[in-house]
Amino acid sequence: MFVLGIDPGVSRCGYGAVRRDRAGYHAVRAGVITTPVSDPLPDRLASLLFELRGLLDELRPEAVVVERVFFQTNVRTAMSVGQASGLALAAASTAGCQVAQYTSNEVKLAVAGYGAATKDQVQRMVQSLLRLTEKPKPADAADALALALCHLTLAPRLARVAAATATGGVA
Amino acid sequence: MFVLGIDPGVSRCGYGAVRRDRAGYHAVRAGVITTPVSDPLPDRLASLLFELRGLLDELRPEAVVVERVFFQTNVRTAMSVGQASGLALAAASTAGCQVAQYTSNEVKLAVAGYGAATKDQVQRMVQSLLRLTEKPKPADAADALALALCHLTLAPRLARVAAATATGGVA
Repeated sequence: MFVLGIDPGVSRCGYGAVRRDRAGYHAVRAGVITTPVSDPLPDRLASLLFELRGLLDELRPEAVVVERVFFQTNVRTAMSVGQASGLALAAASTAGCQVAQYTSNEVKLAVAGYGAATKDQVQRMVQSLLRLTEKPKPADAADALALALCHLTLAPRLARVAAATATGGVA
Repeated sequence: MFVLGIDPGVSRCGYGAVRRDRAGYHAVRAGVITTPVSDPLPDRLASLLFELRGLLDELRPEAVVVERVFFQTNVRTAMSVGQASGLALAAASTAGCQVAQYTSNEVKLAVAGYGAATKDQVQRMVQSLLRLTEKPKPADAADALALALCHLTLAPRLARVAAATATGGVA
């Protein structure tokens, strides 16, 4: 399974693509799309949408995972995170991908086994799972890789639960 | 000048196109793009983006005005309004339109002459300025027409101020 994680933001939008096969997890690509703060917001959003589309066209992931953000967390940046997440979700659906959303706590729980794990602990687990020689950088790209790993970890379990529910059994 | 106002929302996204010529203001089109609450959010956002693009392609407005929303107002709907506004701003910029944003209070002040005007007062002013036989409906479309009228009222003044500033004079 091939999953693209997206950590939405207008100034910095992290992405990280992970493939899982019999040998384990493999980081395929990770990086950050940036838009200049000096540009008008509509142009920055148009540029972000264009870049996200290009990434989806090129990588063709089966699933896209976008971090689910709560507004209470940071009202100042909430609007731009909401705008960026809207673009990511729309672009992923338009590209025909499965789309999932997880909160930061769900990612920490799935990847580091602990919902209140520190950023450093999560990054070390991402490094370990992907067998990277050092911690993934920058932080936005590391967060996006963690989102992809979260989905790769949870999706098979959720599918088993759904199948068991459908047949009346318990996985 | 031909302006398209957009009142962003995922469930209901109002739009209203207004043209100004020597005879005054003319309502060209007004309506609401809706997406089914029962559909997954990414599909609804993709559908909204598709519809907005179609509207921009068809109408080809010179300027697009999107309501600027503050998160403090309604945290529950803030995320979806943020997502919808991101799509509208990106689509407008991609279509090569000028893009402006005004708050609800700025619209009330420009259209009804009073920042704390009621929705009904604004709708009556929209009806009057556009010489409609009755108040525009539904409310989302009326709000979008008010946004377009706000820009048509303010843009020439702002342009004069900008020109005066550039030449060192005062308009």
